Amino acid sequence: MSKKNNDKLVIFALGGVGEIGKNMYVIQYANDIVVVDSGLKFPDEDMLGIDIVIPDITYLLENRDKVRGILITHGHEDHIGGLPYVLKQLNVPIYATRLTLGLIEAKLKEVGLLGETKRITITADSELQLGTIKASFFKTNHSIPDSVGVALETPEGVVVHTGDFKFDQTPVNEQYADLHRMAEIGQKGVLALLSDSTNAERPGYTGSERSVGVELEEVFRKAKQRVVVATFASNIHRIQQVMDAAYATRRKVTVIGRSMVNVVGIASELGYLRIPDGMLIEPEEVNKLAADRVVILSTGSQGEPMSALTRMARSSHRKVDILPGDTVIIAATPIPGNEKYVGRTVDELFRLGAHVIYGPGSVSGVHVSGHGSQEELKLMLNLMRPKYFIPIHGEYRMLRLHGQLAETVGIDRENIFIVDNGETVEIQNGSARKGGKVTTGNILIDGLGVGDVGNIVLRDRKLLSQDGILVVVVTLSKQDGAILSGPDIISRGFVYVRESEGLLEEANRIVTGTLNKLMNENVNEWASLKTHVKDVLGRFLYEQTRRRPMILPIIMEV
Amino acid sequence: MSKKNNDKLVIFALGGVGEIGKNMYVIQYANDIVVVDSGLKFPDEDMLGIDIVIPDITYLLENRDKVRGILITHGHEDHIGGLPYVLKQLNVPIYATRLTLGLIEAKLKEVGLLGETKRITITADSELQLGTIKASFFKTNHSIPDSVGVALETPEGVVVHTGDFKFDQTPVNEQYADLHRMAEIGQKGVLALLSDSTNAERPGYTGSERSVGVELEEVFRKAKQRVVVATFASNIHRIQQVMDAAYATRRKVTVIGRSMVNVVGIASELGYLRIPDGMLIEPEEVNKLAADRVVILSTGSQGEPMSALTRMARSSHRKVDILPGDTVIIAATPIPGNEKYVGRTVDELFRLGAHVIYGPGSVSGVHVSGHGSQEELKLMLNLMRPKYFIPIHGEYRMLRLHGQLAETVGIDRENIFIVDNGETVEIQNGSARKGGKVTTGNILIDGLGVGDVGNIVLRDRKLLSQDGILVVVVTLSKQDGAILSGPDIISRGFVYVRESEGLLEEANRIVTGTLNKLMNENVNEWASLKTHVKDVLGRFLYEQTRRRPMILPIIMEV
Repeated sequence: MSKKNNDKLVIFALGGVGEIGKNMYVIQYANDIVVVDSGLKFPDEDMLGIDIVIPDITYLLENRDKVRGILITHGHEDHIGGLPYVLKQLNVPIYATRLTLGLIEAKLKEVGLLGETKRITITADSELQLGTIKASFFKTNHSIPDSVGVALETPEGVVVHTGDFKFDQTPVNEQYADLHRMAEIGQKGVLALLSDSTNAERPGYTGSERSVGVELEEVFRKAKQRVVVATFASNIHRIQQVMDAAYATRRKVTVIGRSMVNVVGIASELGYLRIPDGMLIEPEEVNKLAADRVVILSTGSQGEPMSALTRMARSSHRKVDILPGDTVIIAATPIPGNEKYVGRTVDELFRLGAHVIYGPGSVSGVHVSGHGSQEELKLMLNLMRPKYFIPIHGEYRMLRLHGQLAETVGIDRENIFIVDNGETVEIQNGSARKGGKVTTGNILIDGLGVGDVGNIVLRDRKLLSQDGILVVVVTLSKQDGAILSGPDIISRGFVYVRESEGLLEEANRIVTGTLNKLMNENVNEWASLKTHVKDVLGRFLYEQTRRRPMILPIIMEV
Repeated sequence: MSKKNNDKLVIFALGGVGEIGKNMYVIQYANDIVVVDSGLKFPDEDMLGIDIVIPDITYLLENRDKVRGILITHGHEDHIGGLPYVLKQLNVPIYATRLTLGLIEAKLKEVGLLGETKRITITADSELQLGTIKASFFKTNHSIPDSVGVALETPEGVVVHTGDFKFDQTPVNEQYADLHRMAEIGQKGVLALLSDSTNAERPGYTGSERSVGVELEEVFRKAKQRVVVATFASNIHRIQQVMDAAYATRRKVTVIGRSMVNVVGIASELGYLRIPDGMLIEPEEVNKLAADRVVILSTGSQGEPMSALTRMARSSHRKVDILPGDTVIIAATPIPGNEKYVGRTVDELFRLGAHVIYGPGSVSGVHVSGHGSQEELKLMLNLMRPKYFIPIHGEYRMLRLHGQLAETVGIDRENIFIVDNGETVEIQNGSARKGGKVTTGNILIDGLGVGDVGNIVLRDRKLLSQDGILVVVVTLSKQDGAILSGPDIISRGFVYVRESEGLLEEANRIVTGTLNKLMNENVNEWASLKTHVKDVLGRFLYEQTRRRPMILPIIMEV
């Protein structure tokens, strides 16, 4: 422990606390910054038209000379999805395990950043010296292989970031969590633990992935016709078990849905999926085989409108139809907000005569979470025995509940820091306190635009979505301000025009009257004319319809 | 059984099957129509700007002379909320139990329909002769008192409509389900059963409301400060138990939230709520009492943005603040689609330092469903022993699962009818078959407009909500078509204008260029000009931004 007295350890999230998604954590000691993960978030329902959300990385850009690299814990979108945007602005090395890097590289290729990005493959045994910070890793169980946690040895002490984890005692493909290394890290002494809070609301233990395999094989065996399995494309363990169950029940597998095809390709190429020779068939071949010899592995477990399963459920998939008597397994729990989409897909599948296995994993048996429940979170806390605890990766309530769990295993309440994005925890001479706040926020991505949609645009979209818009155009004479043409009123998203002709005609009369009156009173500044038109028309429409469409007055002058 | 041979019994839903909400069922024998319930539905997320949805009642209007009345099973919005709109077009008698009618009358008063509507109070012992159809009733358990099922004796046989129900063996306020009458009806013979499918996905039995009371009292007793309870305003049993638990723990109760105040008023006036003298206090008095002597009964159990609980959680309620150490009980399960709102409210409450009890009733102990689970659905089927079975009140998957349950208790598969809204089941000479389809649909209500928002308006709102709008205005000369003013481009909800000046300037140049080119080519029909501007500008913007805003070209002529 060689340290100057003024240097301190600073820990904060640029994304990932008080939310699910866009995970990005910063551990800084003096002039060395190590970033853990670089994720994206899917937009909230009030972010209309937005495709994805990434963290504001102003802090990193302002301190770009200090950033030693980005360590990636695993290959999920909420941990790697921000990289194509971040690396465009900040060219720093990426460190990740093989599979994780394979998934990242596919992304970087798409945006043309592969060549210029330094990528370093790590294993759980790697040790990296990143300035004054030494990074080492430990294997964890999660719903994607090759997940790791990170131990960062700083002059101030060791900071552990768990990544996403559960403790699966019977994992698939021998992807054991390295309990011994975790115990060793804890034994040596952990200054601060940052731990996954996703399932802090759930009592008990999360089930083993292997239990899903048993159930899948059972369903495959009983099904008299084809079996469709929809699950997350990134859940390679689950995909492996679908392959295994298919093999055991002498079925062939076809893979549909863009992301599923991609991931199966990358994972099998890198050796993370073991697919028997001749097991995979093209979608076109499905109809050549007997129905009880086929498994269709598909995207769409969240009822996403454009996904393969949703298309099949609507009988609009180009290659595969659902037939009466087919079995459809939705091997996932709906993410909050997606329940209605999933419900609709299940309804459509029932209508097609399919037998559907769905619902919470505890009922369906075909899904388990990738995140540890309360007892596993306590186990991690007990293994690491940290002095300070910062729950991460969760909504505020989950962080708080995780904090309460930490208290039950003996962490002092004053040593538990529940933080918002950007709120720093500073540790100096072994003593931690809340520090200042760094810039954070949501950068909204809409099409090619990064950050060009802000609150005003979103507010307008919201307004437009509720009651539509009325455009009022009038051409005035430059000379005397007389009305030369119009006012014309054009509406969109307001009322069904054919049934509301009278209303719009009356609106037109009111606008004309207002303009003429103002002319007579010699009010002719445009701003004033526009405000009056907006007010008078808005009031009239509200009285008549109880709606408040956006009103956009446009004055032309010739 | 006196019947002419040509007459038949026709049963169908105008709303309520393949959906949750807007329940309205029609039972017609020859020239006699009896309607059961008249509900509303809350809009789906794709019905932008819509307030509520009611069934299309074209069929009833076309057969208005035959409608003998509307029987209401209970006072929930999805069973009574359509009445103010339906009665405006169709003045027929309403039959309902006392509490149900009390709630209906409050609604009719608001819209000025109270005087002209014939309202008949029934009890579970009433018998009504509605043309050739004789109606009688049976008490059920549900999450609102005074709920009944209906038995309709027609010349063709007896049709039973369960209303919403569960079997609660220890109900609150002795609101027992009348098992004996149900048994008697079943014993006499039921031709067709229409039964509530809400919980057809849930195995086992639904818990008793009384279990909630035990838990509430426990929480009230342990809480060291104030207790806030949020639940559905209409759940009068739950409200009674809050009052009882408050009494047992020597707390006073204040009621906040418009609908909660209304319902408590109506229910206590009609004797359905027993509130000890001096128990109720005004919100203003809360701060005068010790914190451990107070209960705040509130709306907002679904995280509704404008509700009392949400306001308190955001510290923006006019009268009541949440203080650190207060206990907040969310005594409800989120309705699908509301999970995120509830989650956000819980987060805010945690931030205020409250202790929050929330989550599924099975975990929190402070909520049970009002609908029977699979074993109760089977019990109803076994009590009624119907020849034909029509599952109602549920999404398609629930109807199908309810149908499967019916098979397990011995109903022939061909005697089970899964119908969509409008699909009729015809029964003649004891034999049922699917008949034709009557007009049905969603009538969308937006402000004062009933049905003036249709697919085109919704499609426009959707478009506007995603990428906003660009209005392109140009004034042309009547004489020679020359551009006199403009083109002006105004955007809303598209990009943050200040950061995208270059883009909009370039767009302007492109539009000007296109117009000039067309002029030179003597293309001057407005339609053609508009189409060209739309195409060229749309393509340019998509290339630049990957967005597709609505483009609205307006040509003025002077």
